[in-house]
Amino acid sequence: MALQLVIGNKNYSSWSMRPWVLMRQLDIPFEEIKLRFDFNDGSPFRKAVARYSPAGTVPVLVMDAHAVWDTLAIVEALHEAYAQRGVWPVDPLKRARARSLCAEMHAGFSALRSLCPMNIEAHLPEVGVRLWDEYDTLRRDVRRIEQMWADALQASGGPMLFGTFSAADAYYAPVCSRFKTYGLPVSATTQAYMERVAALPGFRQWVADALAEADFLDFEEPYRSGRA
Amino acid sequence: MALQLVIGNKNYSSWSMRPWVLMRQLDIPFEEIKLRFDFNDGSPFRKAVARYSPAGTVPVLVMDAHAVWDTLAIVEALHEAYAQRGVWPVDPLKRARARSLCAEMHAGFSALRSLCPMNIEAHLPEVGVRLWDEYDTLRRDVRRIEQMWADALQASGGPMLFGTFSAADAYYAPVCSRFKTYGLPVSATTQAYMERVAALPGFRQWVADALAEADFLDFEEPYRSGRA
Repeated sequence: MALQLVIGNKNYSSWSMRPWVLMRQLDIPFEEIKLRFDFNDGSPFRKAVARYSPAGTVPVLVMDAHAVWDTLAIVEALHEAYAQRGVWPVDPLKRARARSLCAEMHAGFSALRSLCPMNIEAHLPEVGVRLWDEYDTLRRDVRRIEQMWADALQASGGPMLFGTFSAADAYYAPVCSRFKTYGLPVSATTQAYMERVAALPGFRQWVADALAEADFLDFEEPYRSGRA
Repeated sequence: MALQLVIGNKNYSSWSMRPWVLMRQLDIPFEEIKLRFDFNDGSPFRKAVARYSPAGTVPVLVMDAHAVWDTLAIVEALHEAYAQRGVWPVDPLKRARARSLCAEMHAGFSALRSLCPMNIEAHLPEVGVRLWDEYDTLRRDVRRIEQMWADALQASGGPMLFGTFSAADAYYAPVCSRFKTYGLPVSATTQAYMERVAALPGFRQWVADALAEADFLDFEEPYRSGRA
């Protein structure tokens, strides 16, 4: 099967990161098509994406010329096409739980996502301290994620959320990056999991590519606009 | 398999509506557990939900005492446990597309969702006119949904989005209800699809139950708070 993955800037596109890390980590071959974000005038980006997907967002997985958009749909398509690679845990109840974790991420944690946008090259611990003090919504998001990880790691025994690497780890990979960029105060269990994620070859390759981009976009981040 | 579906008020809980309509429509037996929303002081509701799910939200599907939370994970669990019922289209590429539509709904359309909360018993066309004039984000959300439905109906030939009823129709059932409550100006194609959804026995039963609740909550809706 010919697979193309359409993504945005690696430094910024947390949604693109998820299927990319998943496919790299599971040795699923694909062609990468990177479209440059333009936050000031989105029209060239939107026009480029529209060639691949009617939703106008990245990531898009093109499977034999058919567009699959939105990350969870991409993950399920890979699970079906590569049934033996371990996209999801083998046990049905664990699989259902892994999907619950991903679906909760897919729709939730809006405080973390809006206040602490992914920015791999940046190091913003002072911003993190300020946000942490100011927003109980951010603290709640982070505490819920930490609890979720701790529960999953305890149930599986680790080292990844469901034992071996799965889509659940890929789904939370950008969250690990955010926790690090903003230096959010997390538990030792969380820190150790973040380090194990950071050591995954698929994650390391994405980060290396992001740092090599050196394509810094002047978009409205909370710490720039003074909102935070 | 013993299934319990934990839901919120039927008049208001659009997320609960999705798996409920899906299961009713596909004749998947389950026990309904309804927890009353309390928007002024959420703690009794949250405490009640916490007995079923660590995420603290409805819906929750309890499968043989294991919690599956978040609607997309519930849909996939049902798809696996009832493989022959038609949760998703049989064709893999159509299935991938149906999942794309649902994942886009799962994470998106925030203007429609925040400005036009589901309220089955209400009839608010004047509010709809005002919102429609004021918010281009709302117009964009509705136009995108209409395009998505039109594309799917054209590709499948109807009457449902992917031919016969599937999770995609259940996913957009609350959207049909919102379009109706707020009298949003939609195309004839959209209107005809909404009428076909409204005629589904699973949809009609949910609406009848919602109307029978007569449990009106004094929460901050845009048309009450003056925000819109």
